[in-house]
Amino acid sequence: MSRLDETFALVAIDSVSGNESAIASVVESALRQNPHLDVERIGDNVVARTTGLHRTRLLVAGHLDTVPGDPATSTNDGDRVTGLGACDMKGSLAVMLELARDQEPRPVEVTWVFYAREEIARAQSGLLEIGELRPDLLQADAAVLAEPTGGVVEAGCQGTLRVVVEMRGLRAHTARPFTGVNALHRLGELLSRVASYEPRVVEIDGVSYTEQLQAGAVEGGIAPNVVPDFARCTLNHRVAPDRSREEAMTWLVEFLGDVLDDGDNVDVADWAPSCPPALTNERLGALVALTGRPARAKVGWTDVATFRELGIAATNFGAGDPLLAHRSDEFVAAGELDQFAAVLREWLR
Amino acid sequence: MSRLDETFALVAIDSVSGNESAIASVVESALRQNPHLDVERIGDNVVARTTGLHRTRLLVAGHLDTVPGDPATSTNDGDRVTGLGACDMKGSLAVMLELARDQEPRPVEVTWVFYAREEIARAQSGLLEIGELRPDLLQADAAVLAEPTGGVVEAGCQGTLRVVVEMRGLRAHTARPFTGVNALHRLGELLSRVASYEPRVVEIDGVSYTEQLQAGAVEGGIAPNVVPDFARCTLNHRVAPDRSREEAMTWLVEFLGDVLDDGDNVDVADWAPSCPPALTNERLGALVALTGRPARAKVGWTDVATFRELGIAATNFGAGDPLLAHRSDEFVAAGELDQFAAVLREWLR
Repeated sequence: MSRLDETFALVAIDSVSGNESAIASVVESALRQNPHLDVERIGDNVVARTTGLHRTRLLVAGHLDTVPGDPATSTNDGDRVTGLGACDMKGSLAVMLELARDQEPRPVEVTWVFYAREEIARAQSGLLEIGELRPDLLQADAAVLAEPTGGVVEAGCQGTLRVVVEMRGLRAHTARPFTGVNALHRLGELLSRVASYEPRVVEIDGVSYTEQLQAGAVEGGIAPNVVPDFARCTLNHRVAPDRSREEAMTWLVEFLGDVLDDGDNVDVADWAPSCPPALTNERLGALVALTGRPARAKVGWTDVATFRELGIAATNFGAGDPLLAHRSDEFVAAGELDQFAAVLREWLR
Repeated sequence: MSRLDETFALVAIDSVSGNESAIASVVESALRQNPHLDVERIGDNVVARTTGLHRTRLLVAGHLDTVPGDPATSTNDGDRVTGLGACDMKGSLAVMLELARDQEPRPVEVTWVFYAREEIARAQSGLLEIGELRPDLLQADAAVLAEPTGGVVEAGCQGTLRVVVEMRGLRAHTARPFTGVNALHRLGELLSRVASYEPRVVEIDGVSYTEQLQAGAVEGGIAPNVVPDFARCTLNHRVAPDRSREEAMTWLVEFLGDVLDDGDNVDVADWAPSCPPALTNERLGALVALTGRPARAKVGWTDVATFRELGIAATNFGAGDPLLAHRSDEFVAAGELDQFAAVLREWLR
């Protein structure tokens, strides 16, 4: 089966976050056929390890889940696979499966990690689940996280802060709105303020991080003829590695400023910490050299931050254009899979 | 039982739109104890009629439902009843029940209508249900709709147009939002435009109507780290009696103007027509005189428009401050109930 065919087969399996049982079984089954691998299933996560005696162990990890969408509308035209999760990150998973099954002798041990629930709140992460139940399986000297990076190393990652803003108003009849305060009209101010945000750019170790602020969800409304006294908005703030959660929150509340009233709430719903570049690590430096291109910053949050918490130097490197991730027209091309496979194969030598 | 006690007892019965079964049974039971009334229950609507031989028949109608809220937090301090539906319109219902049970001889026949589902989409109205199943029960020479009007006649009503706006964007990762278009940020523009609306005021037959435009509900959001490509907003436009549904829609689309894109939808979800003043009707003119104060416009939509469609001249007259309707702090005072009862009793003589 070609890399595109393997990618297409993985895309066809619905694996929206929380629904990874089927794809985990397919991956587990494919890996268990290989006697040189020790395969463990932990919930909907699968870990496969070579068990030789080499001193160095390298780890390659990828998540099995996708954001919500329709896996049924995917296509494979022989040059590219288009469809939900093609780019983020089933193309890379297909290459990982291929190299995991490859029995060529290597001078290092390799751990392959396929994990669940990366695209939702971090507390539910399958990687954290493995880290809690079987931390021994994650031990390694360096790790590659195969998120889509366009075939270059994307170093570190930005933190991600999810905040829920609850705005108050005063209920009234929609025919006499002047007797109340419409919380949705106040929400309009909030959304317009967020839309006016100009990203802060931070340079760390020669790598440039661009922060972001986006509205992710809104809700509000009581009945067709009632001026609503409540509106809720979820914001997502991407935070460069030079700011902590507290510093990011302080900035955000200041930025929203007079849009907020005393009766409103601004609460942290989720925080995943940032990770500075780790390119001084010899193995990761070698990976950058193998790609033949300079490293750049990872602007999204990734589990390199989780590996950092586990004391393992990790970086992002995978097939597919990161700009296509989470878009309805995402795809991965055959050439991208080939380049990723060639560099990764060389790195594991 | 005093008028306040009767009001308090009705407020204590949860009757949010669609859940009027219990209160309809209480009303039906109270009316059936009176041999001078012919009582009919149609769904969750109750109609009670005197069946004498007088040539003139007057009709008094009120709705049993309330907007959503908590009926458990109501109070009766002896001067006023505070709580969900106290003002809109259980105070008036209490007076209607009292006068319906009153057996004093009158020179007219009277029809008392208690109906369900007034506070939601008009297609579900209990009054329309009676009109379809038993139009004979609604025949009358003039009608009073006992919506809260502060004890004066509020003539006619404005139309109400409910519109659903669906806005499109382009899905992206929240760490790289510049590759997409955030439909919620576009929603911010829409809400800000709506919040900037300045009401149009129209004078008809010496009565002044003030239009309104309000956002009633919003929704949107896919996943925490996805820039959403879709947002929905429900708008409520109150339309003076000089404009049709089509004229109102034309104005609205022009007002929203450049906030809308080609891919967006603007659809009518609900329309209830306006009703011009009907004060040239002798019986309704007499009612204005009995209140001792000049009539003013009803700015909200009411079922006087439904009576107009049935060919029955109707006007709004009831206890309670209309400015309190649909507010969480709504109340009705003993004096308001007394004035409403006195004028209505006199009108029925």
